[in-house]
Amino acid sequence: MSGQSGGEAAEAELRQLVATGGQILYQQGLTDYLGHCSARVPGTDRVVIKPKHSKTVRSPGELGSADMVVIDLDGNLVEGTDAPPAERFIHTEIYRSRPDVQAVVHTHQRAATLLGVMGGDLLPVLHVPAVLTDGGTMPTWPCPLLVTSRELGKDMAASLGAAGLCHLQGHGIVSAAADVRGATVTAIALEQLAEANLTILQTGLKPRVITAAELEELRGTVAAIDGRWAYYVQQLGGAA
Amino acid sequence: MSGQSGGEAAEAELRQLVATGGQILYQQGLTDYLGHCSARVPGTDRVVIKPKHSKTVRSPGELGSADMVVIDLDGNLVEGTDAPPAERFIHTEIYRSRPDVQAVVHTHQRAATLLGVMGGDLLPVLHVPAVLTDGGTMPTWPCPLLVTSRELGKDMAASLGAAGLCHLQGHGIVSAAADVRGATVTAIALEQLAEANLTILQTGLKPRVITAAELEELRGTVAAIDGRWAYYVQQLGGAA
Amino acid sequence: MSGQSGGEAAEAELRQLVATGGQILYQQGLTDYLGHCSARVPGTDRVVIKPKHSKTVRSPGELGSADMVVIDLDGNLVEGTDAPPAERFIHTEIYRSRPDVQAVVHTHQRAATLLGVMGGDLLPVLHVPAVLTDGGTMPTWPCPLLVTSRELGKDMAASLGAAGLCHLQGHGIVSAAADVRGATVTAIALEQLAEANLTILQTGLKPRVITAAELEELRGTVAAIDGRWAYYVQQLGGAA
Amino acid sequence: MSGQSGGEAAEAELRQLVATGGQILYQQGLTDYLGHCSARVPGTDRVVIKPKHSKTVRSPGELGSADMVVIDLDGNLVEGTDAPPAERFIHTEIYRSRPDVQAVVHTHQRAATLLGVMGGDLLPVLHVPAVLTDGGTMPTWPCPLLVTSRELGKDMAASLGAAGLCHLQGHGIVSAAADVRGATVTAIALEQLAEANLTILQTGLKPRVITAAELEELRGTVAAIDGRWAYYVQQLGGAA
Repeated sequence: MSGQSGGEAAEAELRQLVATGGQILYQQGLTDYLGHCSARVPGTDRVVIKPKHSKTVRSPGELGSADMVVIDLDGNLVEGTDAPPAERFIHTEIYRSRPDVQAVVHTHQRAATLLGVMGGDLLPVLHVPAVLTDGGTMPTWPCPLLVTSRELGKDMAASLGAAGLCHLQGHGIVSAAADVRGATVTAIALEQLAEANLTILQTGLKPRVITAAELEELRGTVAAIDGRWAYYVQQLGGAA
Repeated sequence: MSGQSGGEAAEAELRQLVATGGQILYQQGLTDYLGHCSARVPGTDRVVIKPKHSKTVRSPGELGSADMVVIDLDGNLVEGTDAPPAERFIHTEIYRSRPDVQAVVHTHQRAATLLGVMGGDLLPVLHVPAVLTDGGTMPTWPCPLLVTSRELGKDMAASLGAAGLCHLQGHGIVSAAADVRGATVTAIALEQLAEANLTILQTGLKPRVITAAELEELRGTVAAIDGRWAYYVQQLGGAA
Repeated sequence: MSGQSGGEAAEAELRQLVATGGQILYQQGLTDYLGHCSARVPGTDRVVIKPKHSKTVRSPGELGSADMVVIDLDGNLVEGTDAPPAERFIHTEIYRSRPDVQAVVHTHQRAATLLGVMGGDLLPVLHVPAVLTDGGTMPTWPCPLLVTSRELGKDMAASLGAAGLCHLQGHGIVSAAADVRGATVTAIALEQLAEANLTILQTGLKPRVITAAELEELRGTVAAIDGRWAYYVQQLGGAA
Repeated sequence: MSGQSGGEAAEAELRQLVATGGQILYQQGLTDYLGHCSARVPGTDRVVIKPKHSKTVRSPGELGSADMVVIDLDGNLVEGTDAPPAERFIHTEIYRSRPDVQAVVHTHQRAATLLGVMGGDLLPVLHVPAVLTDGGTMPTWPCPLLVTSRELGKDMAASLGAAGLCHLQGHGIVSAAADVRGATVTAIALEQLAEANLTILQTGLKPRVITAAELEELRGTVAAIDGRWAYYVQQLGGAA
């Protein structure tokens, strides 16, 4: 570690977290070649992000920390040779508008996207995912275009508002959190909760919804994220 | 076996059963890092149980008999170093209230939990699972909180009553039986029956339900659990 | 092959076919430890059949020709040491009542069983499975009991009548054909057609059904079973 | 490459593309032993096509470029020893009627076929598949017969018209494009979009459909096919 400043060490760790988050989302079936994970380097305008999928950039399950690239908040590539994702403005504009957010995940995950397409509610019917998704809070950005400009990114970030999740109409979702682990695990919890809601909608029965008071109590007892992240890392079958 | 008392040998065998039950539930897709299996050491207040999932406790599919811990009926750790599950009171309070129960399984299994969330009936529509789940008997504990205290455990056990299965509202299920094999195999049968009921509810058609008289007759012919357990053990791909 | 009579060679080949049929049904997900495949030895009252699942009889995917046993038409074991299935009377009574049938498959396959439970029609909506299932013909034996006696077997065979498929109420199906390959491939086609019908029922839309005249024409062009069987054998990953 | 003319090199490359397309469709679950992929050799009446499945022709996942055969536009075998598919007229008649089409894929893919059977709309609800399927355009050829003659092929091609996709009633689909990569990737996108539409139909909710104006804008930003093809090739686990 000699010769590496504290900032460099922190950025190296972020690169590893972003790559691992991407591997987890892929291994859990939330992404294929589409979707990306990023993290803001604390106190800078640098964003570590998975590169754009291409003929030479392999699938997220095989990308390690050295494959990550760095962009600035205007979306310019500042480190790495592979191009950043065309939709990098999803990430940069959320970082601009939300100082509390340090990590962003974007996926086309099936159940959450379809539930959004139908305008179905993400009802808090399962206790762990209900807590992790903040009671099933997921606004919709009502635009199916690709987020390929600062303007579109800004508009999308406005729909996200202060929430942790947002449905991008007919496209996918974003999960924004204080760190990569939170953004990743919340995206997985969202998919579980959305899948449950889809199944319920298919029966026409009325589910028992967890109440606001119960959710409040659950927030104090549902365990922290460390064990969850460790489990998903273990599923990757290697050290991370 | 020299130097090992009968009680120690029995407890060693229980540790193996509890670990194997946990591996089976995981391998059959009924658990991930959440959920646990336990057994009461006969004639004692000792309970062999899977430890709490953590950064260092691996997934249930990789935990062997040496990883199991022992708690007393107050939920105190009496053997092992890893912490017991926060929801250990699910187990201890069932053991307190049900002398006939020697093993408890707790899972977040998808179909059974969702069916409970919707208040759908667990109709006995398939003969083997219908017998194993006692005609589709599954009361609901109408509380989505985590069972992190004796009081909550006692309340949950009251909802279970004399049944073998109970839905924990918006959370998961418990399967309580005379031994680990029974509790495990019944949880699997429950999932099959719940999945069938979900599929039926999605069509809106009215199924032919197995009658009480037919169930009574089936109880005498449906085979014992030995072969079923042997099959699931075999799926683990190792000796057990 | 010296020292082996023609009848012995034929029976050895049947043993291999019955074992392979069982492996295919297992590998394609139509059976677990429950279900069995059999063949009548031509011109005899001998039936080659998979043994009853037990603590020592492994899953169907691992049973080879040497593991098969032979019973007579009364269900008595006449060759082998493992017990025959308790429900062997499904097989023997079909052979008694149907001289044209030389092979029987019994499974608890999910979609076909559920469709029967709901009383849903097996509409001929997909052309290959429609031809293989004789236009979606599947009567129901309206009894969920295990077929553990000659009387029950005879009753079930009466429901099958002259058909190739029968739903056993809340239990599973039988597929009866002129050879093991036909009985096996038809069970697989049935599952595809039943799954399609379940999906259609879940939408409430009215499908376009293949007409009797179209089915008649398709019967002349849909290919024979050789290639289909070869494909499923290949999926087993070994020679057979 | 010495001794190989430009035309021979082009045909060798097409053989590799057709084999790879077949492997991808198989690996992505869109085909089993049924279905085939082909390409027209530019400026000729030669069509490179997967051979008919048979006792000796292995599954599409294991067929390489040397296994492909060549037929003329009348469906006669002109190169190779294995027989061409009985339904080769799907391919030849599309090539005859559509000079712009250089590659054709035929599958029995589940969701798209079922959606067609029900007469459900392929609504453009997801942006990437909506663009790839030309706004969800899929006419139906209202005939469930096998396409085993020029006349039937011609009739089917008339239903396809100028579209890129066509449902063959109760049978499967065709995907016709300017190259093998396009025909293959579009078939995969179709399955994603059809699956989404089936799920939506199962809930009875009304989805938000991407508008014609939005689709027009998306056409300009959705990325080209190179990266998509590279991803699916990578999934095959070998070089291609």
